[in-house]
Amino acid sequence: MNNSSLLNIPNKMKALVLTEFNAKPELTEVDTPTPTKSEVLIKIDSSPVNPSDSSFIRGMYSSKKSLPVIPGFEASGTVVATGNGFMSKRLLGKRVACFAPIDGNGTWAEYMVTRNNFVIPLKKGVDLEQGSMLMVNPLSVVAMLDIAKKGKHRAIANTAAASALGQMMNKLCLEKKLPIVNIVRREEQVTLLKQQGAKYIVNSSDNDFLTKLSKIFHELNVTIAFDAVSGDMTFNLIEALPVSGEVMVYGGLSEQACITNPGKLIFEKKKLSGFWASEWINQQNIVNLLLTFNKIQKYISSGNHTTIHKRVSLDNAVEGISTYLDNMTLGKVLVKPIGVS
Amino acid sequence: MNNSSLLNIPNKMKALVLTEFNAKPELTEVDTPTPTKSEVLIKIDSSPVNPSDSSFIRGMYSSKKSLPVIPGFEASGTVVATGNGFMSKRLLGKRVACFAPIDGNGTWAEYMVTRNNFVIPLKKGVDLEQGSMLMVNPLSVVAMLDIAKKGKHRAIANTAAASALGQMMNKLCLEKKLPIVNIVRREEQVTLLKQQGAKYIVNSSDNDFLTKLSKIFHELNVTIAFDAVSGDMTFNLIEALPVSGEVMVYGGLSEQACITNPGKLIFEKKKLSGFWASEWINQQNIVNLLLTFNKIQKYISSGNHTTIHKRVSLDNAVEGISTYLDNMTLGKVLVKPIGVS
Repeated sequence: MNNSSLLNIPNKMKALVLTEFNAKPELTEVDTPTPTKSEVLIKIDSSPVNPSDSSFIRGMYSSKKSLPVIPGFEASGTVVATGNGFMSKRLLGKRVACFAPIDGNGTWAEYMVTRNNFVIPLKKGVDLEQGSMLMVNPLSVVAMLDIAKKGKHRAIANTAAASALGQMMNKLCLEKKLPIVNIVRREEQVTLLKQQGAKYIVNSSDNDFLTKLSKIFHELNVTIAFDAVSGDMTFNLIEALPVSGEVMVYGGLSEQACITNPGKLIFEKKKLSGFWASEWINQQNIVNLLLTFNKIQKYISSGNHTTIHKRVSLDNAVEGISTYLDNMTLGKVLVKPIGVS
Repeated sequence: MNNSSLLNIPNKMKALVLTEFNAKPELTEVDTPTPTKSEVLIKIDSSPVNPSDSSFIRGMYSSKKSLPVIPGFEASGTVVATGNGFMSKRLLGKRVACFAPIDGNGTWAEYMVTRNNFVIPLKKGVDLEQGSMLMVNPLSVVAMLDIAKKGKHRAIANTAAASALGQMMNKLCLEKKLPIVNIVRREEQVTLLKQQGAKYIVNSSDNDFLTKLSKIFHELNVTIAFDAVSGDMTFNLIEALPVSGEVMVYGGLSEQACITNPGKLIFEKKKLSGFWASEWINQQNIVNLLLTFNKIQKYISSGNHTTIHKRVSLDNAVEGISTYLDNMTLGKVLVKPIGVS
């Protein structure tokens, strides 16, 4: 073959394979994939567990990939083989962040093949672990703040605000001097965000949560709320927003349907919509996206690290998912196909 | 006083008075109101019971009026006295359709005072009973079809489609050759709409309702659904719509909160918003509105009558409200302060 490769790549590799939605992915030995012209093969170093992975495994994700499939959306690693296209070959040997193909095997394996334009070379100051979380969360935050800016929202809110995404959103809002109401559900999350300079924090476990939320939304004139929780949280956000306010749902962490008072839609012009980073990405041109990734890497290399709670080998990745979802505040869980040292 | 009046107007009148939200309005004798410069006094002939009256009495309506208050939003009658402004005086003696003042007593009384620009003289071909239903339903239908047109929707859907509003919407869509999916909940409503030429009717009581709804929504490419029901109906509409579809809620007949699958918002760009005729009216200029009322009157006088199920005196109006809401398909209930002959 004309492909380039750095080293002897084994014919077989270990991977987590999902054979049925809403079931547990199993550790399996499968053929190592081969890149075609516009593709590269990445030896995976680290891959974070994101809420979207959980949605995907539960069968709740948008376009379901064909089964059986390896889950995992984003990772970091080294390009160890490429197809013979120029844009592929130039990535050979590079440390990269990468995103799984739209309908193909993902990152929870020793190796993954993806398109060369789903790959971003990492800068020196960004290590493979931080670099493995370059796409999903930072791009979502950038995208939401872009939506807020284009919609001329002068103050925003975010739920599940102590998550890695939430912490990043709070930091960026502080930098941009955009007032953000951080909504969390535990007192220690209030403390955590306070330490990170958050000015406005509301705890949804407080008895007078809705009163407090409504008060601060009106004081700051919060006109858009990003909601990762759904269920009753959506109801409370719609209630608390001033007239014409909008809730953009980007997750269903409560695993409940969104609930809304019809009167607030009819008489107060409030709106409920959804946010999906992939959708936003599709609307951007490639130059903008590369500039954005550049900024994100600078941001990370200047010390803005995502806390890593736990590293798990492929064998323990499934347990890692529930560990993460139960304790998001503690930090990210990274799947390490190369093993945990 | 400088006011003009046609006849001796009694100092006292009978009215239904609401002293507490979510309670029953009581038949009471109150002072007959006097119009100021830009107002007119109307001797009420007929006033329909609309779903919005029920919302208002239950305290679910947007801006709650100050209590005690006379309910009822629209009516017909004769202008029997006016303030001394020119625009008021020219209405003296006219048969009119009228709308209650924004924060003031409504139509369920022998007399009502309202602003002269809340009054439309009736054409010869429109009798006082049909003329009493000139505003709420027809304007809502016109407004929704205007929204559908401006949003370039090529096919629409409506729930509670056997209501007076629903029947009118179906008729207008047939005229405009705009495909409409009529959603009803009983077999006799299917029959009724078929008789009126409806092409697409889905019964929400069918076991495979959601499958049928989804199939027809995709076949016709229905991209907006108007929902008077809320609750599970909203859930089903959001499920069944093609990607990017929108539900506009305009009523809460189920008395349940709207429910939505967050995945449909996030991954399929679906949206939930509200529709309120008053809001639409505020966005129109007066000439457009007058032209619209002209068209509506022509439409009525050419034989497009709303079915009247029952006429009730003020004494029986409260029972009339529940009669109407339980049997909307049978036709409108008209409150007749002048008594039922």
